[in-house]
Amino acid sequence: MPTLDICFSPELLPLFDLRGRVAVVVDILRATSSMVTALAAGVTHIVPFSELAACRLMAAQGYLTAAERDGVQAAGVDLGNSPFGYLDGGVAVQGRAVAITTTNGTRAIELSLAADAVILGAFLNLGAVADFVRRQNKDVVVVCAGWKGNFCLEDTLFGGALAQRLQPDFDTTGSDATLAALDLWHAAQPDVAAYLLKSAHVRRLNNLESHQDMAFCVKLDAYNLVPIWQQGRLVAAE
Amino acid sequence: MPTLDICFSPELLPLFDLRGRVAVVVDILRATSSMVTALAAGVTHIVPFSELAACRLMAAQGYLTAAERDGVQAAGVDLGNSPFGYLDGGVAVQGRAVAITTTNGTRAIELSLAADAVILGAFLNLGAVADFVRRQNKDVVVVCAGWKGNFCLEDTLFGGALAQRLQPDFDTTGSDATLAALDLWHAAQPDVAAYLLKSAHVRRLNNLESHQDMAFCVKLDAYNLVPIWQQGRLVAAE
Repeated sequence: MPTLDICFSPELLPLFDLRGRVAVVVDILRATSSMVTALAAGVTHIVPFSELAACRLMAAQGYLTAAERDGVQAAGVDLGNSPFGYLDGGVAVQGRAVAITTTNGTRAIELSLAADAVILGAFLNLGAVADFVRRQNKDVVVVCAGWKGNFCLEDTLFGGALAQRLQPDFDTTGSDATLAALDLWHAAQPDVAAYLLKSAHVRRLNNLESHQDMAFCVKLDAYNLVPIWQQGRLVAAE
Repeated sequence: MPTLDICFSPELLPLFDLRGRVAVVVDILRATSSMVTALAAGVTHIVPFSELAACRLMAAQGYLTAAERDGVQAAGVDLGNSPFGYLDGGVAVQGRAVAITTTNGTRAIELSLAADAVILGAFLNLGAVADFVRRQNKDVVVVCAGWKGNFCLEDTLFGGALAQRLQPDFDTTGSDATLAALDLWHAAQPDVAAYLLKSAHVRRLNNLESHQDMAFCVKLDAYNLVPIWQQGRLVAAE
């Protein structure tokens, strides 16, 4: 039976052997939620960058540029890190490619590339992720982007939600991280948004836009789409 | 108001600035539980070692030697890592000094020495630890020893239990790690031993002796004593 483990921080990734496994990178607030939304809105592919300057330069190649630092949109780019940037009609995104850099999500992706497959998870595509990893039938590691390396609740809750979806076909009892995430996911029911209002990260983003983003980012199964890493870019898996 | 944060793994300690804070090192199964028990049983002081060979050499200086590797007593030493080693009368410990090496606990102590004070926490001395840090009135970081760097449930539950004891006088809302530990502590009620039977670590130690140890290590407030690091050794705080 394949296993599901959860890595609570990119800083803990050296403890995990990702070879032969599927890595599900998650940064609920808001990188992976926004990337899922972007591809669902017709973006052709996404190239992540760790450096803002390199990201900005992609505009010359026809890319839309998206950047967030410490929770707010960076200067001189087209989009921030809100999923609504791809939905509200302010910027036409259909058929465009996006270059993106974020505080935590990009780093988590880069550190996960030893895995057999790297996909992006969010509540928005929870069911699609569960279907994808069932078809792969390999061990899964959920890689939480966290907040600057620290444990964060929202990414952990996603790990618990995915574990619940994969029961009983995946072993979700072999790691204390997975057991804890399942219990926290249960504790967060029935109102995940209300639960997350107490989290340090959400309170850090304490303004109306952020609360709207958060309410959107906890919707389950809004998109039947899995972003997958292929040749240096994120595309919708076939 | 002083804060309480929790570091889920020694591998995450570089993210924490321990200066000016009290570090509460916890390795419930079983290093810190055994050290608390040892001092309560009349051991004069404890010297931790990361290397087994160095620990063994302390026998020539009159020390009792205690060593565990991968959950079992190492060869050529007086004691393993069970708290019952200090209780069952097999080895006379009153008035003796102990040299000890453990898989996870020793490393967590060594990595915490930047703190203003390093003390050891266990369920066995939970109330004493809470009283100690209240008197210090400084920010507290609970340093979970974990299992070879990985998150583990039992150390996390201690963090939640300590946070509950320190409410409302300490800020326990500023970190997601503390919020999660509090929820897990609530989930583990009313039977912490039964809750921990599902943990990966406890199942790894799946034999009668280990279950007896675990049942003992989850007793609350058995000893009114706080081990503290002073000049290279652990002694009972005054």
